[in-house]
Amino acid sequence: MPTSDSPGRRPTIADVAGAAGVSRTTVSHALNGIGKVDPRTRARVKEVAAELGYRPNLRAQRLRRGQAKAIALASSMPLAVAGGPSRLGFYMEVAAAAAERALNHGYALVLVPPVESGSGLESVDIDGAIVVEPDRDDPVVAELTTRGLPYVTLGRQVGAGDRVPSVDLHGGPVAELLLEHLREQGARRPALITGTGDRHTYVDVREVFTRLAREHGRPVLSATAPEEGGEEAGYRCCAELLRRDPGIDAVCAMVDTFAVGAVRAIADSGRTVPDDVMVVTRYDGIRARTCEPPLTAVDLHLDEAAVGAVELLLEHLRGGDAPSRAATPRPRLLPRTSSLRVTARA
Amino acid sequence: MPTSDSPGRRPTIADVAGAAGVSRTTVSHALNGIGKVDPRTRARVKEVAAELGYRPNLRAQRLRRGQAKAIALASSMPLAVAGGPSRLGFYMEVAAAAAERALNHGYALVLVPPVESGSGLESVDIDGAIVVEPDRDDPVVAELTTRGLPYVTLGRQVGAGDRVPSVDLHGGPVAELLLEHLREQGARRPALITGTGDRHTYVDVREVFTRLAREHGRPVLSATAPEEGGEEAGYRCCAELLRRDPGIDAVCAMVDTFAVGAVRAIADSGRTVPDDVMVVTRYDGIRARTCEPPLTAVDLHLDEAAVGAVELLLEHLRGGDAPSRAATPRPRLLPRTSSLRVTARA
Repeated sequence: MPTSDSPGRRPTIADVAGAAGVSRTTVSHALNGIGKVDPRTRARVKEVAAELGYRPNLRAQRLRRGQAKAIALASSMPLAVAGGPSRLGFYMEVAAAAAERALNHGYALVLVPPVESGSGLESVDIDGAIVVEPDRDDPVVAELTTRGLPYVTLGRQVGAGDRVPSVDLHGGPVAELLLEHLREQGARRPALITGTGDRHTYVDVREVFTRLAREHGRPVLSATAPEEGGEEAGYRCCAELLRRDPGIDAVCAMVDTFAVGAVRAIADSGRTVPDDVMVVTRYDGIRARTCEPPLTAVDLHLDEAAVGAVELLLEHLRGGDAPSRAATPRPRLLPRTSSLRVTARA
Repeated sequence: MPTSDSPGRRPTIADVAGAAGVSRTTVSHALNGIGKVDPRTRARVKEVAAELGYRPNLRAQRLRRGQAKAIALASSMPLAVAGGPSRLGFYMEVAAAAAERALNHGYALVLVPPVESGSGLESVDIDGAIVVEPDRDDPVVAELTTRGLPYVTLGRQVGAGDRVPSVDLHGGPVAELLLEHLREQGARRPALITGTGDRHTYVDVREVFTRLAREHGRPVLSATAPEEGGEEAGYRCCAELLRRDPGIDAVCAMVDTFAVGAVRAIADSGRTVPDDVMVVTRYDGIRARTCEPPLTAVDLHLDEAAVGAVELLLEHLRGGDAPSRAATPRPRLLPRTSSLRVTARA
């Protein structure tokens, strides 16, 4: 290891105090800019500390201050069934933006995706957490609550009300964008695929979907698939919907892996996308863009949302009158070949 | 905040000791499975601790043990010039795989991408770090060395020799795969674009490129672009190469953003890809896959490499006879339209 070469032990605060001829408290005050220290003494202490290569013990400092100076980005949603670049989805996009913003505030961002051995959060020393789109009964939220750790959610937690600060991801407007687009493109018998469970994005789209179905006198063709099943679960769910109702002419699959599986199920049933069945999804990531045909999706402004979540959490950690909500720009539809029937014909 | 509801103060080890009628040392030994504690006493202490909702102070525990139980994934390479899903490149793919593996060992993975305000590492409490493809003079490595923190590199650091444990990313074989492929597809006047600086991947490809140029009696058409310039830097670099030598019939751009810029520069010069000029790149990420035409790239087995780096670092943190190298599977070429001239004609 590179450190095996480093000579002798690390200089301590006592070494600095000895060399500068002052007390340890004076060294601590001088270096941390607290208490009353003569400016010349402060300058000398800093000089001596630099000469000796003294660095404060971050861990001890933080124990005294009761801070970890670290926040977690936690999620109960499986990162991906497959590995490789396909793992780079919603969560990792949020992580990239959040890590930069947190570091700029002097906070480390710790990744806590779901792992097989428990929540992963148990062993992590943090001041607080951002929970990405929690379920109504979310194990990550339960763990944070048990540990008494502050958290904010990215996308509201269904049932949590105003108790938990959150960044709005506009679940209702996103659902309306997708479903209205399908209607405009000629869909008369759309079906909905969400994950099992009650993440806000599923609950919101189910509500909008049911309302629109009633308004247009259509049956509510809705099904759920287990998130951990990935593309295969989306395939099976879509195939089953098409068997049950062969007249389905559009599929709104709220998880991008499900949408990719749905496209495959549609092709295997002898139908074409978008001419026989249109497909849309929510998150505009690598899967939506590399699917054949490319999938209509929504720009959720995740960069702004991630930065907003970091700011919201840090405001709460600082205490005082922090807001309970942070807004993000309105979502924007990104129409692609998978649902452009009208335009394709024009 | 959700924690504002939590009643009273958090139970301490003294509370558990009092309720169980034993000493604090006994509580500590019982809960941590150290020392000699009667099994019945241990069971009672655990029961009382659970009843009271006692949780050990992770920070104090780690200060005593001298552990942060956190490792950093650090890089001096700009995350991306643009935001959004295009930020999901090499570094974030490594992060996803490394975070899961680290958590399974009870370690948190802290993201330390380069940030404007210094290295970002200064404020982070970690036991060690994985440095992603460091430059020969890397600021992240310098910071880790100053702090006396152990680290391993993902991709060797040029000039570091065997002093620093590293995971091999096969820079030479990757270069040969790409350049041999171009030759097979008919390239007679290939050009090379690398980033400025001496990351192993640049140094290795320059060496192979120069050797092959000499073997085939060709000029060494090589240029560098600043990494932080992104797609625009790749565009300008490629446009300048084409001006200098209009006979160039292939471009090997080692950074994916450069390759995307190069494709645009080739089109703007009135040439077509791959018929007039072929383009290949190294990392098989979202940019290579969504480029028009899709870019030939290399499967670097980043999942295995990331997991290997975590294992290598943790072995060194445990001390003892840890290996200085971890191998990854051999890289594999992924030929795509951007360089399939022969096949396209066949």
